[in-house]
Amino acid sequence: MQVSFKTQKSSQAIRSASGQVQTLYLAPNDVAQIVRRHGVGKVTAGMAAYIREDFLRWAQFDKSARTAAHSDAGVIELMPTADDQLYSFKYVNGHPGNGAVGLPTVMAFGVLADVATGAPMVLSELTLTTALRTAAMSALAAKHLARADSKTMAIIGNGAQSEFQAFAFAQMLGIKTFHLFDVDLSATARLQCHLERAGLNVKTFTSTADAVRGCDVVTTVTADKKYATIITADMIEPGMHINGVGGDCPGKTELAAGVLRQASVFVEFEPQTRIEGDIQQMPADFPVTELWRVFAGEAAGRTSDAEVTVFDSVGFAVEDFAALRFMKDAALEMNLGQTLELIAQSADPKDLFGFVGQAQTAEQGTFA
Amino acid sequence: MQVSFKTQKSSQAIRSASGQVQTLYLAPNDVAQIVRRHGVGKVTAGMAAYIREDFLRWAQFDKSARTAAHSDAGVIELMPTADDQLYSFKYVNGHPGNGAVGLPTVMAFGVLADVATGAPMVLSELTLTTALRTAAMSALAAKHLARADSKTMAIIGNGAQSEFQAFAFAQMLGIKTFHLFDVDLSATARLQCHLERAGLNVKTFTSTADAVRGCDVVTTVTADKKYATIITADMIEPGMHINGVGGDCPGKTELAAGVLRQASVFVEFEPQTRIEGDIQQMPADFPVTELWRVFAGEAAGRTSDAEVTVFDSVGFAVEDFAALRFMKDAALEMNLGQTLELIAQSADPKDLFGFVGQAQTAEQGTFA
Repeated sequence: MQVSFKTQKSSQAIRSASGQVQTLYLAPNDVAQIVRRHGVGKVTAGMAAYIREDFLRWAQFDKSARTAAHSDAGVIELMPTADDQLYSFKYVNGHPGNGAVGLPTVMAFGVLADVATGAPMVLSELTLTTALRTAAMSALAAKHLARADSKTMAIIGNGAQSEFQAFAFAQMLGIKTFHLFDVDLSATARLQCHLERAGLNVKTFTSTADAVRGCDVVTTVTADKKYATIITADMIEPGMHINGVGGDCPGKTELAAGVLRQASVFVEFEPQTRIEGDIQQMPADFPVTELWRVFAGEAAGRTSDAEVTVFDSVGFAVEDFAALRFMKDAALEMNLGQTLELIAQSADPKDLFGFVGQAQTAEQGTFA
Repeated sequence: MQVSFKTQKSSQAIRSASGQVQTLYLAPNDVAQIVRRHGVGKVTAGMAAYIREDFLRWAQFDKSARTAAHSDAGVIELMPTADDQLYSFKYVNGHPGNGAVGLPTVMAFGVLADVATGAPMVLSELTLTTALRTAAMSALAAKHLARADSKTMAIIGNGAQSEFQAFAFAQMLGIKTFHLFDVDLSATARLQCHLERAGLNVKTFTSTADAVRGCDVVTTVTADKKYATIITADMIEPGMHINGVGGDCPGKTELAAGVLRQASVFVEFEPQTRIEGDIQQMPADFPVTELWRVFAGEAAGRTSDAEVTVFDSVGFAVEDFAALRFMKDAALEMNLGQTLELIAQSADPKDLFGFVGQAQTAEQGTFA
């Protein structure tokens, strides 16, 4: 069966025959099955179509600020957004020291809910899904910002996000040659293996400057939380598109100010990117263009073959909203996921106490 | 087995033998089983001990504002808080029209997470749990604010929260006689049945004024979202304690300004209650006392038998935090709950793409 990836508009709460709210639970394995069935390229392309559709409805979204709980070890954030039919939030952490205890630095899950009733419709893993939507957003932006004849992309930083970026650009922009560099040689070797196995061309380099030279697109997706200057002005060539993914929170940048000054810079949601993006190092009036305006034809993307363009990616809640919509549709089409009861409901809504009596008596399940 | 309800301090992320993050999922039936095993009274008393313990650590909490997404139909909120070990958030909606489609007006679930790693430790229903924690907080406040010789409580508004209030006050304050009034006679009949079945004394009335007369404690827990004056100054008798539960969001009050003016008023978190509580109708400098100060002995509760006291309850994130802690401990002690995989994890954290290959191949589960 070929998944059509067409948008299903229904946003009604999912109910059992007896009227109980049923939440569709998508486990990491469910999302992985969707990806293995269709491939990272097709999934990111499908997701990009959902993101584009939602960005074209930009004004309809409640673009709340995220909440962030900071500790010495890291940060835990909630990223909510909503249109008039659906509400979503993402829970996501960032803990740089997690590798030392065998945990991912970033873990995420999220919920899609029905605005009309408040019922939670989908609970999904979002660790894998966030990697997919970040790559989908990058490739979608590049469709408007990179030169149409782009053939080669440098990937600086070969960690967890790198394969997703490569496969999204291969699918959506036809880029088949990737120049890799990372200070961690084993990360580069792993990425090279994965890309070559998929029939893509790979060249590895021993410095960022060497990897970037001659490339049409430069993707930076490094992990160090510091004011870094991975890409400096001298590396920039006319017509390059810079896909800056790793500079995404206060205190974490990848692009030298001189790179930004010679480029046209595009962002997701300007107020957020001013705080979190590479442009955090620029004056408050440094000019940027929100991408929804480019998608809608209200603002120009690339205007000449010589122009240098930058997508200062930080990740925005509307992308997670679109990604949750996509995963729900793809999962239902493959009959994946399980039903989770999250909401205590009595036959009489005024009789919540009665639910205690309605509950099953047998002890069930174990926690191991 | 007797549950000790002692606090378990451990806040480490729960891991499988292979190091995978495991989230304990507590379904509505699990929470209902805890309640049926121990009874509403003992559960609210146990939960009140957790709330008190957390209120005594007041300064340690990150007391963020909640996020609220408003629509014509209602509101969806996220309520996060954290100390230096644990993070929690509650998802909760408020949709007054849900009864017409057979859904509860308020539905809630939430997560307890490990601050050190960001790993989600517990995902739990919170609809039933919120009713329990609201009653626990009311009774805990009344232990400090009601007269020690209190024998009778009026319950004005006999909806979903009312049984929980009655059983909490019976357990924690020894109140055995309840005066009931609601404009919905069937709601009063249901509450009367539930309380009498538990051996409590019930008298029903045809007006608020009649129900309140001669009572030591007056609990208001009505549902209409409007500026109501359920309790007026002429109904107040010396020494009364008013437990004002239903006036809990902007535009929704139950107590006349004249009631508040003649009383000592106690609140959970002053900045929030100024916006959401009955005191929203009072000047910004209207004096109130935060309850954590009373629990800690820094401020007086009731100071004389003639004093009129008001707890202007709105519900605060730290109470949900304590309630989640309590339910986790109680569930583990009864071996309840199931393991949920929310986090995609590869053996190599830098190789998220590898997870796609690691996933099981068999399609599993169905969505009905």
